[in-house]
Amino acid sequence: MGGVLDGMPAGIWMDLQQVQQALDRRRPGQNTLTTERKEQDVVRFLSGFHPEEDESGRRQTLGTSIGFIIENEDQRSTDYQAIQDQYRPSHADYTYEAKYGIRDHRGGGRSSARETVCRVVAGALATQLLPADLRILPFVERMAGIGIPADASFDPQAATAHITGCPHPETAENMRDQLEALKALGDSAGGVIACQVHGVPAGWGEPVFDKLSARLAYALMGINAAKGIEFGSGFAGADSRGSIQNDAFIAPGQTATNHSGGIQGGISNGMPLFFRLAFKPIASIKQSQQTINRQGEAVEMQIEGRHDPAVLPRALPIVEAMVALVLADFYLAQRIQRTNS
Amino acid sequence: MGGVLDGMPAGIWMDLQQVQQALDRRRPGQNTLTTERKEQDVVRFLSGFHPEEDESGRRQTLGTSIGFIIENEDQRSTDYQAIQDQYRPSHADYTYEAKYGIRDHRGGGRSSARETVCRVVAGALATQLLPADLRILPFVERMAGIGIPADASFDPQAATAHITGCPHPETAENMRDQLEALKALGDSAGGVIACQVHGVPAGWGEPVFDKLSARLAYALMGINAAKGIEFGSGFAGADSRGSIQNDAFIAPGQTATNHSGGIQGGISNGMPLFFRLAFKPIASIKQSQQTINRQGEAVEMQIEGRHDPAVLPRALPIVEAMVALVLADFYLAQRIQRTNS
Amino acid sequence: MGGVLDGMPAGIWMDLQQVQQALDRRRPGQNTLTTERKEQDVVRFLSGFHPEEDESGRRQTLGTSIGFIIENEDQRSTDYQAIQDQYRPSHADYTYEAKYGIRDHRGGGRSSARETVCRVVAGALATQLLPADLRILPFVERMAGIGIPADASFDPQAATAHITGCPHPETAENMRDQLEALKALGDSAGGVIACQVHGVPAGWGEPVFDKLSARLAYALMGINAAKGIEFGSGFAGADSRGSIQNDAFIAPGQTATNHSGGIQGGISNGMPLFFRLAFKPIASIKQSQQTINRQGEAVEMQIEGRHDPAVLPRALPIVEAMVALVLADFYLAQRIQRTNS
Amino acid sequence: MGGVLDGMPAGIWMDLQQVQQALDRRRPGQNTLTTERKEQDVVRFLSGFHPEEDESGRRQTLGTSIGFIIENEDQRSTDYQAIQDQYRPSHADYTYEAKYGIRDHRGGGRSSARETVCRVVAGALATQLLPADLRILPFVERMAGIGIPADASFDPQAATAHITGCPHPETAENMRDQLEALKALGDSAGGVIACQVHGVPAGWGEPVFDKLSARLAYALMGINAAKGIEFGSGFAGADSRGSIQNDAFIAPGQTATNHSGGIQGGISNGMPLFFRLAFKPIASIKQSQQTINRQGEAVEMQIEGRHDPAVLPRALPIVEAMVALVLADFYLAQRIQRTNS
Repeated sequence: MGGVLDGMPAGIWMDLQQVQQALDRRRPGQNTLTTERKEQDVVRFLSGFHPEEDESGRRQTLGTSIGFIIENEDQRSTDYQAIQDQYRPSHADYTYEAKYGIRDHRGGGRSSARETVCRVVAGALATQLLPADLRILPFVERMAGIGIPADASFDPQAATAHITGCPHPETAENMRDQLEALKALGDSAGGVIACQVHGVPAGWGEPVFDKLSARLAYALMGINAAKGIEFGSGFAGADSRGSIQNDAFIAPGQTATNHSGGIQGGISNGMPLFFRLAFKPIASIKQSQQTINRQGEAVEMQIEGRHDPAVLPRALPIVEAMVALVLADFYLAQRIQRTNS
Repeated sequence: MGGVLDGMPAGIWMDLQQVQQALDRRRPGQNTLTTERKEQDVVRFLSGFHPEEDESGRRQTLGTSIGFIIENEDQRSTDYQAIQDQYRPSHADYTYEAKYGIRDHRGGGRSSARETVCRVVAGALATQLLPADLRILPFVERMAGIGIPADASFDPQAATAHITGCPHPETAENMRDQLEALKALGDSAGGVIACQVHGVPAGWGEPVFDKLSARLAYALMGINAAKGIEFGSGFAGADSRGSIQNDAFIAPGQTATNHSGGIQGGISNGMPLFFRLAFKPIASIKQSQQTINRQGEAVEMQIEGRHDPAVLPRALPIVEAMVALVLADFYLAQRIQRTNS
Repeated sequence: MGGVLDGMPAGIWMDLQQVQQALDRRRPGQNTLTTERKEQDVVRFLSGFHPEEDESGRRQTLGTSIGFIIENEDQRSTDYQAIQDQYRPSHADYTYEAKYGIRDHRGGGRSSARETVCRVVAGALATQLLPADLRILPFVERMAGIGIPADASFDPQAATAHITGCPHPETAENMRDQLEALKALGDSAGGVIACQVHGVPAGWGEPVFDKLSARLAYALMGINAAKGIEFGSGFAGADSRGSIQNDAFIAPGQTATNHSGGIQGGISNGMPLFFRLAFKPIASIKQSQQTINRQGEAVEMQIEGRHDPAVLPRALPIVEAMVALVLADFYLAQRIQRTNS
Repeated sequence: MGGVLDGMPAGIWMDLQQVQQALDRRRPGQNTLTTERKEQDVVRFLSGFHPEEDESGRRQTLGTSIGFIIENEDQRSTDYQAIQDQYRPSHADYTYEAKYGIRDHRGGGRSSARETVCRVVAGALATQLLPADLRILPFVERMAGIGIPADASFDPQAATAHITGCPHPETAENMRDQLEALKALGDSAGGVIACQVHGVPAGWGEPVFDKLSARLAYALMGINAAKGIEFGSGFAGADSRGSIQNDAFIAPGQTATNHSGGIQGGISNGMPLFFRLAFKPIASIKQSQQTINRQGEAVEMQIEGRHDPAVLPRALPIVEAMVALVLADFYLAQRIQRTNS
C-alpha cells in the first residue's frame, strides 16, 4: 500500500508521529471486537519532507509531492484461495470481475479495507495543515441497532475512550454486548457514525459544482460499506416545514438552530458542521451463505479468515481523514477566492 | 443561463425537442403548486451539432463541445431589492457574502434554482447517449410528511401523471392537499425523491476514488436543498445484520434481494440502482422571520416574490439529469477499461 | 462563439472596455493585409460581474464563472460550399473527418481562427488580474522571410504601431512590401513572434509536470498554425557550451545573461521571460492546388473566400492572451504554495 | 523515486523485463561519456498486475493503478554539501528556494535528472498498450555543434547502436570526439533530438485545447534541459510560403510532402509524426563559475560530483517514454470519440 499526496504547501512543520498514531487507531487486532490480524502498519515517507528534524522531532514540508508506503508483513492470502472461484455476497468480487474481466483474488486489493490506510496517512497530514482550532469529531452514534438516546448528554471526544467508538458510556456498553453476541453467531452489524466539525469559518465550499456538502458526500461515500449520508436534520428534516427548519441568524456566522448542519447553499455558514454516515453490516460473516461460482452454478460458501463484527470503530479515523482532506482543499482554495485574501 | 457540455462522442443523432421537453417539465408556472412566473426557458444550441436535420428533425453531434444558452425574459429582480441588505434564513445570502465579500442580490444567480436549467439541458443530452434500455425513474416518495405506504404497489413511471410527482394516486392526492394547506399558511414542505435506474450493466464505477455511489452522491447533493442521500437499504439497513442484508447471488448480475441498491464495492452489479434523496423544506416562506442585516442588527424580514411550497415536483427532471450525466461518464469510461471493450 | 472563464477571484475591478479593445486588435478587415470581412466581434458578458459600474465604468468580479458570447453577423458560409467535399491541403478538413467521422464544412468551426476570439477575451480578463507591473510584449520578429537584424535596437511596444506588428520600422516596411507581393501572387507567408514578459517574480512554475516552460508551450502551441517554440537561446543555444550558456547570478533574481529565457528548472528566476513562436505560412492560398476529395479521387482545388496573407499580425493579441492565462494560473497557485504566502 | 500510473486498461499482457531494459538504457555509468555513478535502478511494482506469469514471464494488468518504486543505493549526497549555500548557475537551486522558501539541497530531488526514471517506467508500460506497429524512434540529430548532414541517409533505429545516440556512424564518431574534448575541458554540450513516430493513425488529438502538438510540447518541454520544440518544418518552415509548405493530399492519410510533421489542425493526419527537441548544454560543468550565495554575496563556485558532458544520449529513452504516454492517452480517448468506435 502506498500513495502520493499532492498540493501540500511548503514550510509546514509536521509531526510525523501523529500520522503513525492515526494509523494505529485504524489498526485491527487491538481488542476482541476487531480482527486478530497483527498488521504492522508502519508508514515510511519517501519524499516531501526536509531531512532535518526540529527538537520535537518535526520535519518541514518541501512543497513537493509527499510519497509514502505502508508495508504489511502479515498477509495470509492463503485464506482467500478456497473461495477464489466463488462470489462472496455483497462483496466486490463479482463487480470487479464484471468490470475488468480479471481479478486478483488475494486479500489486500483495492476493495479491501486495507486500502484505507492511505486515506488515514493523507488525512493525518491534512489535519496538520488545517487551522489548529478546527476540530473534527466523529463518533459512533448507532451500532448493531443500539443508539445513543436522543436526549442523552455526552462529549463526542469521549469516542476514543471506548473500543466501540461510542462516547456515551452506557450505550457503548450495550453496543459491545450486542456486538459480541452477533460475533458469537457468526453474524455482523452496521451502524451510523455522526460527526461534528468545529472551527470551520463561513465561506468554504463552491456554489454550483463543488458544494461543501457534495464534496463531503463524495469523499465519505467512497469509504467501504458507506451507504448513506445526511447533513444537519437530513431525512428527518425533510418531513418538517420551512417555518420550523429555517435557521434564524442571530449574529454573523451564528444561527439560533443548526438544522442546516453548518452548510447553506453549499457553503459553510460559520456554525459547526454536522453529518451522519450510514454503514451497512460487514458482508464477511461466518455463517454459511448461498451464492454462485464463476461458472454461474449455485454453491454454498463459507468465508474463513479474520473479520470484525462491525467496521465502525475502526472507521472513525478514516472518516476524520476524509473530512480533513476535503476541508484542506477548501481552506487552500479560499486563499485565492478574493483579491485581498 | 448557459453552459458547455464537453466529451460527447461524434455521430449521435439527437432529438433536440426532447431537451426542450425536459426543460418544460422543470418550468414553474404550470399549476397552483408551482410559482406563477412565466419563465420562457427556451434553449438555443450554439455549437456541437451538424446543421442538417434528418426527417424526424434530429441532428447529429459533431464530437465538439456543445454550447447552449437559455434566455429568460421574465426576470423581476425588483422583488429582491427590498431585502438586499438582509440575510434570508437558510438561504445562501450570508454564506456567499462570507465567501466572496461581494454578492449580486438580484435573483437568477448561482444560488438560485434557475441554475438547474443547465443541468436539465446537459442531462437530456446525456440521456440520448446512454443505451436505449437504460431508464432513470425518479419519483416523489414522501412530501410534506406524507409518504407512499411501504406495502403500496405502483408504477414509478406514473410520477409524471400527477402534479406532485408522486406515482401512487391516493398518496399524491393527500400530498397535494397538504401542500395547499401549507401554502395557505405561507409555509413550505420538504420530502424525499426515490429513484430506480433500470438497465445499468454490471461493471460501472471505479473501485477507490470514483465509486459509483460516491459520484452519484456528489452529483445529487449538488442539487439545491438536497440534504441527504442513501443507497439501497441505507440508514435502515445500518440497523440490520449481515446475514439479513447480504444479497445472495442467484445468477450473474442477479441477486435474490437488492439491499445494496445495485452497487457493491462502488461498482454496479447488474441489479437496478436504487437511492433516496432528502430535500429540506423550501427556505423562502411568506411568514415573517427573524434575521439580521448586513450591519449585524436584528431585523424582522418578509420575503415577497413567487415561491413554490415544495421543490420536489420540479426537481424530478433535475435528479434524472444528474443521474444521466454521471452514468454517461461511466458508460464512456467503461469502453476503455478493457483491452477488448 | 462563447466561453466560460472559471477561477477568477472575487472583488477585482475590471475595465471591460479593455476586453473589447483586445478583440478589436485581433479583428480582421483593418487594413490591406488582413481579410476584408467586417466581423462585428462584440463581446457580451452573461455572468460573473456585479451590475454596478464605478465612475470609470469598471465592474467588479463576483468570484463566480464568467460566461461570455461573441456574436458575428457576417458569416458567409456559402464560400465554403464549393469545396465541402475536398480536403484543403494543410487544413484540418481531413483530420477532423478522420477523427469524428463527420464534419461541419461551414466556416467558423473549431478549426477556424475565429475560435481565438474566446482566447482573447479570457486573456484580457486574466491580464487585469495580474500585477500591474507585469507586461507581456509580443512582437513580430520575422515574417515572409524578413527578420529584424540581430543588432537592431527597438522597443517591443512599438509592435502595435505598424500593421505588420513588427516594432522595427525599417524591417516592418520590408515585411509589408513582401507580404503584398505574396498576396498579389495568391501566396502566403509565415514567421516568428517573439515575446518578452517583464515583471514575473521568481518562483512561478511547478518542478515536474507543470514547468512554466511546459505550460507556456502547451498554451502557445494550441494557437492555430504554431509549429515551434523556443525559450531563451533555444535551438541556437543547443549548439553552444555550458561555460557560455550558463547564466551567472549577480544578485537574487538577476543574472548576467539571460540564455535561460527567465526559466530555470521549469520555474521563473526573476529575469524577463523570453520565447519565440514559429508560425507556418497560412494554408489558405488562392493558387490552384492538388488534393483529393472525400471519395479519394485526385482533384484540383481553388480556395475562394477572404484570407490574410499571414496570420502573425492578428496573432499578437492571441499570444498575449495565452501568456496571460498561463501566468494568471501560476500567480494564483503561488498564493497557496507557502504557509505564509 | 516512485510513481503511480493510472488509467491503464485491464487484461493487457505486459513484459516487465522491457521496463527494466528501458531503465537500463537511461542509466548512467555505461561508458566514458556518462557519469560513473553505479545507479542500481531496479524497478519494483507494488500494484496493478496479476501475480501469475505466463510462459514468457509476462503478467496481466488488473485495470487498477500501477504503483512502482525505484530504489537507488548509490546516493552520495555528501557531494552536494559543499555547495548547499550557493546557487549553481542555470540550475534550479535559486528558483526552488524562491518558490518554496525551503530546499532540500541533497541530490535526487525533483529537479534532478533522477526524477526521469519514473517517466521511463511509465512510458515503457504505455508503449506496451499502444498498437504493435506504432514505433517511436528518437535519435540524436545534433550534439556539441555537430549535426547529421541534411543529405545523409541513415536508419533512425541505429541510434541505439552508438553511445552518442546518433544513428549516422560518421557523425556519431565526430560527436564523440567533440564530447570527449569538452569533457577534458570541464565543459558541456547541448544538442537536438529528432523523433519520428510511425504508425499513428489519422484522428488523434483534440481540436482546441488538447492539440496533439500542444500535448506533445507540454510533455516534452517538461524534460530537464529541454528549451525548444518544433514540428515538421518548424522554424525553417516559418520562412517559407504556403504554396511550398502546404502538403498536398495524394491519398487518404497520405500527403506528397510532410512539412506538417504529421499534424494538421492539432490532429494526426496519418503521416509519420516528426519533431525536434532542443536541449541546452548541461549546466553542471567542472570549470569554476561566478555566482552568489544565499546571503546574496558574490562567490566563485566549483561543482564537484559526477556529471555527463551531454544529456542527450540518456534522454532518448525519456523522449520515447513521454511520447508513448501522450499517444496512449489519445489512443484510449479515440475509443470514445465516436459512437461506433
